[in-house]
Parts: sequence; C-alpha cells; structure tokens
Amino acid sequence: MISPVQRGSMTNSLVEPLSEKMLRGDVMIAACPSREILSHLTSRWGVLILIALLPGTLRFSEIRRRIGGVSERMLAQTLQLLEKDGMINRYDYNIVPLRVEYTLTPLGKEAAAKVRDLADWIENNLAALTLAHDSPDAVA
Amino acid sequence: MISPVQRGSMTNSLVEPLSEKMLRGDVMIAACPSREILSHLTSRWGVLILIALLPGTLRFSEIRRRIGGVSERMLAQTLQLLEKDGMINRYDYNIVPLRVEYTLTPLGKEAAAKVRDLADWIENNLAALTLAHDSPDAVA
Repeated sequence: MISPVQRGSMTNSLVEPLSEKMLRGDVMIAACPSREILSHLTSRWGVLILIALLPGTLRFSEIRRRIGGVSERMLAQTLQLLEKDGMINRYDYNIVPLRVEYTLTPLGKEAAAKVRDLADWIENNLAALTLAHDSPDAVA
Repeated sequence: MISPVQRGSMTNSLVEPLSEKMLRGDVMIAACPSREILSHLTSRWGVLILIALLPGTLRFSEIRRRIGGVSERMLAQTLQLLEKDGMINRYDYNIVPLRVEYTLTPLGKEAAAKVRDLADWIENNLAALTLAHDSPDAVA
C-alpha cells in the first residue's frame, strides 16, 4: 500500500529521522509519545471529564452527574489515566463518607480549553452537522 | 451518586429542559447527537485522518502512509464514518488499478483545524507532558 509518489504539502513522517522529529512530537508517528497522550485526551470520557472540570474543582459524584451516561467504573478509570498524564490532581480527604476532589492542573486547563473549543464548535454547528450526516453531498 | 449540592459555574445539563438545550448541542447529554459527532471526530483514527487531509486531497494509500500504524481495514472504516458525517468527500475514479481520493468538506476543514490545534499543543508541549506523566505532582 506504500505509494512511491509524494504529494501534498505535509511532510512524510516515516521518511524523516525519528530523532529530528522527536525534538517536537509528531502524532503521525505510531511510536511517538504524543500519540498516546492524544488518545487519552480524546478518549470518549477523557474529553468530557476535561470539559466538566474546566469551571473548577469537583467531587467524583459531581463529575458523574455532569457527564450523562458515564459509569462509576469508566469515570474512575479515566480519572486515573488523566491523573497519570498530569492533567488532573486528585485530593482524597480520607474521611467517611468518602470525599475526593478533582482539579485540572495548569497543563490540564490548557488541554481542556482545546477540547472545549472543539465541543463548542460541534454544539454551535449541530444543525449543519446533522444535515451533513443525513446527506454528505449537502456540504460538498 | 447524585449529590444535592451544586457547585461550579457550569450549568447542570440534566436538570434543564432537553428541548431548550437542543437549540444548541450539549455533549454532556448522553442522548444529544453532538455526543456521537464528538466521538467520531475524536476517535483514534478519526483525529489523524482529519489532520492528514488538512493540507489537501489525498489517495487512500497516501493517507495510510501519513498515519503510522493504521490498518487498511481501520482506515477504510473510519473514512466511511467521516464521509457519513459529512466531514470528507470520496471520489472514486472507477478505474483499475483502483484510484480513490479523499477531500475535507468545508465542515471537515473546520473540524480538522480544531483537532490540529489540539495535536499542535501536545506536540509542542511533549517534554512537559512526558515529565507530567512521570510525576503528576511536578505540574500540580
């Protein structure tokens, strides 16, 4: 499937030295760490968690209430992933009943703003997007 | 898991009339069509396909070469999904050997610019993000 022909203005990651590309990440390279981070930030629940935490600190139950349809298990797993990525901080008050709060880190706030921007665009263009979904040619 | 306490500036989608929210999409509502569109645009391969097509029209084999690690099957499936969403147009020249070209629609270009923006941020902050991944407290 590899075509010898090269077209378009985008450089072909695969033929450039990896070391050079690694000075800056390149999500097009399967082995680049940026690819994994991108997949976490754009995961089904990762996106919604970042958006939910953008206004400020929330408790686990509050995040779950904001995000329609998320299970306790998936929310806990994704929060753990985003914490490992340094996107959110988890504060456990070690009291009963359980009280755990989550806050975006400075990096998390920047990432959240990017995905919020994408979500805003979708929400604002929902009519056109739904029309397009019904008949792709309508927006060709 | 529903806490009676409400905090933060974000409105709680679940307690507002759905009809009112539907004037504008709301990705926080599980049943909102914007949720499905968001999941397509942020899917593992969807993001990379949009970015790959941003510079211009590409053939199937060229898209596959740009996106490291994508299988023919996953690329074909995701291209079909994005076409159905009205994000890309598919041109089949109906010749042998097979020649099929893909181009972003006007909507697709807007969506691609948003995900490209997120990818740029990750690529440019990869060092900090990798450090954060190693020790979340470093960016707390």
